[in-house]
Amino acid sequence: MAKKSDRVTPELLKGFQDSLPEDIIPRRRAVRVIEGIFERYGFAPVETPALEYLDALLGTGGENANKELFRLLSPEEEEIALRFDLTVPFARLMAQYPDKLKPPFRRYAIGPVWRADKPGPGRFRQFTQFDIDVAGSDSPAVDAEVIAVMSEIMVTLGVSDHTVLINNRKLIDALLADCGIGEIAQQKHVLRVIDKLAKVGVDNVRLELGPGRVDDSGDPIPGVGLEESTIGKILDFVAIQADNRTGIVDVVAATLPDTPIAAEAIKEMRSLAEALDALGVAEEHARFDPSLARGLDYYTGPVFETIIPSAPQFGSVMGGGRYNNLVERFLNRPVACTGMSVGLDRLLAALGELGVLQPASTPVQALIVTMGNVPPAETLKLAAELRNAGINTETFFASRKKMQMGNQLSHADHYGIPVAVIIGEDELAQGVVSVKDLDAGKAKREDIDDRDAYREAGKTGQQTIARADLVAVVTELLGTRD
Amino acid sequence: MAKKSDRVTPELLKGFQDSLPEDIIPRRRAVRVIEGIFERYGFAPVETPALEYLDALLGTGGENANKELFRLLSPEEEEIALRFDLTVPFARLMAQYPDKLKPPFRRYAIGPVWRADKPGPGRFRQFTQFDIDVAGSDSPAVDAEVIAVMSEIMVTLGVSDHTVLINNRKLIDALLADCGIGEIAQQKHVLRVIDKLAKVGVDNVRLELGPGRVDDSGDPIPGVGLEESTIGKILDFVAIQADNRTGIVDVVAATLPDTPIAAEAIKEMRSLAEALDALGVAEEHARFDPSLARGLDYYTGPVFETIIPSAPQFGSVMGGGRYNNLVERFLNRPVACTGMSVGLDRLLAALGELGVLQPASTPVQALIVTMGNVPPAETLKLAAELRNAGINTETFFASRKKMQMGNQLSHADHYGIPVAVIIGEDELAQGVVSVKDLDAGKAKREDIDDRDAYREAGKTGQQTIARADLVAVVTELLGTRD
Repeated sequence: MAKKSDRVTPELLKGFQDSLPEDIIPRRRAVRVIEGIFERYGFAPVETPALEYLDALLGTGGENANKELFRLLSPEEEEIALRFDLTVPFARLMAQYPDKLKPPFRRYAIGPVWRADKPGPGRFRQFTQFDIDVAGSDSPAVDAEVIAVMSEIMVTLGVSDHTVLINNRKLIDALLADCGIGEIAQQKHVLRVIDKLAKVGVDNVRLELGPGRVDDSGDPIPGVGLEESTIGKILDFVAIQADNRTGIVDVVAATLPDTPIAAEAIKEMRSLAEALDALGVAEEHARFDPSLARGLDYYTGPVFETIIPSAPQFGSVMGGGRYNNLVERFLNRPVACTGMSVGLDRLLAALGELGVLQPASTPVQALIVTMGNVPPAETLKLAAELRNAGINTETFFASRKKMQMGNQLSHADHYGIPVAVIIGEDELAQGVVSVKDLDAGKAKREDIDDRDAYREAGKTGQQTIARADLVAVVTELLGTRD
Repeated sequence: MAKKSDRVTPELLKGFQDSLPEDIIPRRRAVRVIEGIFERYGFAPVETPALEYLDALLGTGGENANKELFRLLSPEEEEIALRFDLTVPFARLMAQYPDKLKPPFRRYAIGPVWRADKPGPGRFRQFTQFDIDVAGSDSPAVDAEVIAVMSEIMVTLGVSDHTVLINNRKLIDALLADCGIGEIAQQKHVLRVIDKLAKVGVDNVRLELGPGRVDDSGDPIPGVGLEESTIGKILDFVAIQADNRTGIVDVVAATLPDTPIAAEAIKEMRSLAEALDALGVAEEHARFDPSLARGLDYYTGPVFETIIPSAPQFGSVMGGGRYNNLVERFLNRPVACTGMSVGLDRLLAALGELGVLQPASTPVQALIVTMGNVPPAETLKLAAELRNAGINTETFFASRKKMQMGNQLSHADHYGIPVAVIIGEDELAQGVVSVKDLDAGKAKREDIDDRDAYREAGKTGQQTIARADLVAVVTELLGTRD
């Protein structure tokens, strides 16, 4: 036996998470639903390794140098790192296999990504991304299909209350040009401020676009320093509303001066509106919103983001947009791409909060519980019978002192196994088994405080049946539970 | 646009693999089958992070220091590494969550693992492990269940020709004790030589147990240096055969001297034989083989390994055994564990070779192909109709010069999409669509060398139908293909 000093502390890395069955089972159900939708829209699965060359992730200009990467050296002493998203590997793939992956190519991918950020509640250093992307198509019809996927995921998962907010990088560019804001740093500052609209309100945004303000904690927030008339123009623009998508485009068209960039943006948005109508995406599920400004310096056309109006605390549960310049890092020519990413952890948290996620603690449906000296072979025969009938069945073999029946029933209770199949020497001799619906007994006992009645209730849902009826009885019990 | 020098070479890391749809689709089917079997045997899913503390992976004694790890530093400058298997993280988990994961606990896990080995054909630095393990039970009945899972996986995947070879570390210990081989290094050397029996044959093994030999390349292989009588004893032992599992145990019992360790091993093997019978595992699918010596210094009881006799080149496609000392690294007391790992890549390669793996190149079932100026909205409406009927449907939107019908049909052909739904302005006006079974035309054309007949055959399987019949016709076409 190891000496005490040889012990290693069992410890999860800071900022990481272990997932137990109750985490995995609902997540996996959601993943299957989403995968089914991805495939119905013509996306095919692809997987790339966790590790990539550092250059591929950063770009030669180190454009992503601010991404906190887990860096290491390959056995050949090359600089490599764990991927921070699935989009850069997708771009690498499109550039590397031009003969196999002929565009337009639609792929979906699911997998872990890593960021060496400061962890926080719900913010992990390893998390799952679940993406679709289309390479080689610049049609707004494809953007519309990506938006339709986002809405269909929400509908299928039971969240009819959802909206995909949609804007276009080119609209913002046209607005900024109209305002005479040409400097990149200033453009980015304006975008960052607009992005805060829902969070801090229009009055604070007005101050931040102008002279700046002091926040609740007393810290000064420097302003962009725009003139009052320019601020008014921006605030009018991002406040544009109308009854429907086409209505928004009409107002936008009337607001912006007739420049080539504005004309192109408006044409794209009209095509997008038509395509969304053709796909049957309801107005309330996909709304044009000129105030949406998510990381716009990365995107080159439409951008989108899915929110749940009744659960605003979860923010955006999916997001994406068109990016035509990422494959260029590898190929030296732009490839039109659009796509979106499901924030799986956030989406599942929201589904849980909304009560549309059916919790499950184990896939096990039945536990074989033994009393006294039942030979292991008898337990295994019962288990085999149930398993052959497709029932997920666990057996319980442990040291003698843990084999009391009470301990075995506690085990079923602890893991949330719904049915116990109980067998002892007497049952064996008589060719019978006892079957116990553990939920029935539990439910009944919750209402009782008298001790004898409590014990009696413990027998609720227990029946002794002929061995030959075992599969039929357990199947029926499980069927009535779902 | 980026300057030429800004280009990053799109390159996969040495020793890693990208997986395209044709790799993923069959693998995923196999994974679902295997998961279903794991759950039927009462295993629940668990996931742990890719990264662990170096100490947890190595043990304080650095027992795994010979494992080639991808090491790095955490943001807190701690020594961490990518996991090299799923078993150590499982042991860490059992030690870390004693209240949640009360033993006996059965878990399965699937995920990537990393080894900074020298890569080779079929040998990657990142590969998938797919494991079951049971912690907290020392009963051979549980080992039997693990073996039953191995056999059931093979049967369900269509490989009736398979054998799980089974041995017991304690039997080998009894044999070595009987031979007076007490030194650990010498024990390991003997085990390594026995392990080569199937590969190099009994005559070479005899030499390697004795004075050594010179291999085919002329390199000297040092021998263990045992005496002729000891070598004879070992070779007789590993050659033991009988009609069935119980028969093997009888011969082994008659061969080994009656020591406590031999008695314990024989008792375990008898219990295991009974349990396998109770589970209905056929003799030809689970055979006791005293020559099996897989990494025996890690295991503490039964060991098992699945082979496909008709495809010996794939070696062991699953393997495992009982290891009672791994959780001890974290807890300072042994926890009885048993389990096995599916070598997914190797298993899939074998299934492919045996022709029991149905290849698939894409999940897409239908491509909407347009002729002339069909508005995108019409394409999207057709796609929506098919998708709503559950048909995986891709649309094709690209630059004008790529929109020729021939190019779109080539796209379907390239990706292996079975059905094309063709629509042009005429079809739109007439309320019809053309549906083309792409496999039918392809099959017919393969037999033709006359040019006109070839062209005519290209129209095989194409029919013009009323728009209202679209879903029914495509569904029928897809149905007859499977």
